Amino acid sequence: MPESFLDKQVKWSRKHLLGLQELEKEEIEYILELARAFKEISTRPIKKVPALRGKTVVLLFFEPSTRTKMSFELAAKRLSADTVSFAVSTSSVQKGENLKDTARNIEAMSVDIIVIRHSASGAPHYLSRCVSAGVINAGDGIHEHPTQALLDMFTILENKGRIEGLKVGIVGDITHSRVARSNIYGLKKLGAEVILCGPSTMLLPEFQNLGAEICYDLKEVLAEVDVLNVLRIQRERINENLLPSIAEYREFFGIDRKKLLKYARPGLLILHPGPVNRGIELSTDVLDSGLEEKGICTLVLSQVTNGLAVRMAVLYLIAGAGGKIEDSN
Amino acid sequence: MPESFLDKQVKWSRKHLLGLQELEKEEIEYILELARAFKEISTRPIKKVPALRGKTVVLLFFEPSTRTKMSFELAAKRLSADTVSFAVSTSSVQKGENLKDTARNIEAMSVDIIVIRHSASGAPHYLSRCVSAGVINAGDGIHEHPTQALLDMFTILENKGRIEGLKVGIVGDITHSRVARSNIYGLKKLGAEVILCGPSTMLLPEFQNLGAEICYDLKEVLAEVDVLNVLRIQRERINENLLPSIAEYREFFGIDRKKLLKYARPGLLILHPGPVNRGIELSTDVLDSGLEEKGICTLVLSQVTNGLAVRMAVLYLIAGAGGKIEDSN
Amino acid sequence: MPESFLDKQVKWSRKHLLGLQELEKEEIEYILELARAFKEISTRPIKKVPALRGKTVVLLFFEPSTRTKMSFELAAKRLSADTVSFAVSTSSVQKGENLKDTARNIEAMSVDIIVIRHSASGAPHYLSRCVSAGVINAGDGIHEHPTQALLDMFTILENKGRIEGLKVGIVGDITHSRVARSNIYGLKKLGAEVILCGPSTMLLPEFQNLGAEICYDLKEVLAEVDVLNVLRIQRERINENLLPSIAEYREFFGIDRKKLLKYARPGLLILHPGPVNRGIELSTDVLDSGLEEKGICTLVLSQVTNGLAVRMAVLYLIAGAGGKIEDSN
Repeated sequence: MPESFLDKQVKWSRKHLLGLQELEKEEIEYILELARAFKEISTRPIKKVPALRGKTVVLLFFEPSTRTKMSFELAAKRLSADTVSFAVSTSSVQKGENLKDTARNIEAMSVDIIVIRHSASGAPHYLSRCVSAGVINAGDGIHEHPTQALLDMFTILENKGRIEGLKVGIVGDITHSRVARSNIYGLKKLGAEVILCGPSTMLLPEFQNLGAEICYDLKEVLAEVDVLNVLRIQRERINENLLPSIAEYREFFGIDRKKLLKYARPGLLILHPGPVNRGIELSTDVLDSGLEEKGICTLVLSQVTNGLAVRMAVLYLIAGAGGKIEDSN
Repeated sequence: MPESFLDKQVKWSRKHLLGLQELEKEEIEYILELARAFKEISTRPIKKVPALRGKTVVLLFFEPSTRTKMSFELAAKRLSADTVSFAVSTSSVQKGENLKDTARNIEAMSVDIIVIRHSASGAPHYLSRCVSAGVINAGDGIHEHPTQALLDMFTILENKGRIEGLKVGIVGDITHSRVARSNIYGLKKLGAEVILCGPSTMLLPEFQNLGAEICYDLKEVLAEVDVLNVLRIQRERINENLLPSIAEYREFFGIDRKKLLKYARPGLLILHPGPVNRGIELSTDVLDSGLEEKGICTLVLSQVTNGLAVRMAVLYLIAGAGGKIEDSN
Repeated sequence: MPESFLDKQVKWSRKHLLGLQELEKEEIEYILELARAFKEISTRPIKKVPALRGKTVVLLFFEPSTRTKMSFELAAKRLSADTVSFAVSTSSVQKGENLKDTARNIEAMSVDIIVIRHSASGAPHYLSRCVSAGVINAGDGIHEHPTQALLDMFTILENKGRIEGLKVGIVGDITHSRVARSNIYGLKKLGAEVILCGPSTMLLPEFQNLGAEICYDLKEVLAEVDVLNVLRIQRERINENLLPSIAEYREFFGIDRKKLLKYARPGLLILHPGPVNRGIELSTDVLDSGLEEKGICTLVLSQVTNGLAVRMAVLYLIAGAGGKIEDSN
């Protein structure tokens, strides 16, 4: 970690990270800058710093998630925190306990941070009012998924050198996407333009109120954007009559070589929060190697790597330890 | 941790903690005293001591439990032990392996302590005869749950300054409660009087043989006791014809503002092992804020905090490390 | 750990441990020698060395397994590595993600070693071509289970002082056994003779091509071998018509006191990979105490202890850390 960084004053006073909607531009920038320093740690032979030694991080996941949970767990461990998973399926929650009681019981064990994923939008906010531990939102319903948007922005910044002035498209089931919402809040604050794209059943005109442009034609979007964030399509939406068929979705909104060759701008960055439905929202060849002849890169694995760095930064800030990041020896 | 404490001679020679029935008064007092020292550790910025570094604690839970398991897991981690959960649902136990073989296989991995919860009364005792690792009973059938009773007593001691001479009521399904049994054994040894209360289908007269008084009328119990330990009621008991209905149970044995105002002694402490069925055995307002006008406190969250301290003490004693609790620097 | 050992040059250049088929004799011997040093660590009061501090080991188990997983987990923890379990049942794999994508996503979190168990033979080999992390095969389909064979050989070596020149029998469902295959590869390389025994439906003549002798009569095998590795019989095989009945299997291939007294050579070592079907492939008395009058020992629990040592050695080598095993102070 560069000296210059350690010398800097930590500009952070929040107890919780609930969403990007409430963050200031400077706070987002500060997380991204800190994440850059933390990213370096995972490249070392000994990928561990004592910053959160003796702190306890609880992973409270009410929805199954392996990647995000593992990312937070590894981030906490590389900061030397103790981690425990609160296994919801075998928990008192099954005995009908409410979220508040569950959380207050967890907190009573002198827990420092609760990382929560919940199918109910707003659950982390509710939680943050019940407990004095720090709360990090790891995805709440269709509301926000702030660390995902932070890692998306980190990846854009790393590859484009800036976010301000860029045009970022988001394509897919926008209405049900917490990834989309958090990206819109974050990107707008950092000065990017956001264009949303998807079937009209999955993209309500109300999204314009968040300051994003709406466009139902992928071709037009591809012609304009510097970055395209491709969302995962949920097959369940077919049963909900939001999607006529996977084949039709792929035809109109799937990203493949042909469409990129014909419509995309050179140097386009393609992001996806994973896991990818190969051959549906993203074709296998584009996922695996982008489109070299136009300098188009797919950054899915970089996003995973950056996610860990971003989560280390967030855990560090929310722990509020101000503990030294490095060992003295 | 006060100097005076560290100077003290450890008065402990047991390999296992199976129940409070077999403990001496002095041993219980020693655990509670040690727990007081360990409680302080969880209030530090760095909540970790090296006492059990390089020791291995296995959590062998044959019944689902999040709180007790998490409490033991965090206790072990704050003592710097390595922990592993033996996941029974995916284990060889499903392949028909018996408890003895499972335990001896676990032990063969040079494990120091096995924390076991099992639906069969006596399972930890059987286990302790099969293995040379230390065994801690985290609840066995309807038999004992010693660390729960220890944390209950710790909480009473912390709030009343003494246990000797107090009258402690336990209300609920006494017959099926390992919490009740362990509390009776422990409280009697420390000089408290115990009064049991519950529907006659759930409170056998034989409990008098354990030295407890029996009273089927909650009003009378409330009028006498300094502490009331309210047990969780299991809805399953309705199907077993032990409980006519939840409404009837609440009417006769549920603790609420009205009954407390009318019958309870001022300064009553209310305990509950959790998770609480809000509005059944304990009304929501009493659970959340006791009854201020009579100085009645509900201590459910304190119990959780104290549980961690008690379990740190128990793990420390059973590990028999005599290892220094604090870092030298 | 003896000085002499630490002075030795590490003869290891492999990135992965996929099977014993591809290992050189010297490599197997080196693992076994290193395991002997690591075994001592688990006998210390502080069973932990800093060798893999700051390394990340992921346990990626697509088949339920408690023992092998716990053995790897404890081995990693005693080397001070960070471990995470990738819980397949709640993972993206359920969302249809392929093994390659899962693995590359895991790897992108800067993971050092992936320990994989998978029902598909060859899955670890495929994985090793997708990722740059080290891959350790913890059992793939009916192909190989190299650490099990290594611990079997370690146990033989420890008890017989040599492997070269010994006759080792393997009895059971050879065709479906990855334990059998790995043992055949390893034992042959170290100079033992291997005799396979089992019902003809479970022992294809093609196994001769691996250099093993085949014998369908347990009595003859018992009369010849120094070591007998008894495999677990799967009751499911009855439904597949490979096994007429458990009783018939026990009669012809079960190991019991009577058969051992009549046919076995004195000093026979009996191994079993566990968990044992007591009274089926191995009688309870033989499992628990061997057959003293002929100096016959059953080493099932030693195997478990040795498994941990072998896995510490394998993790250490695959991590390629060359990190010092011991603390300086």
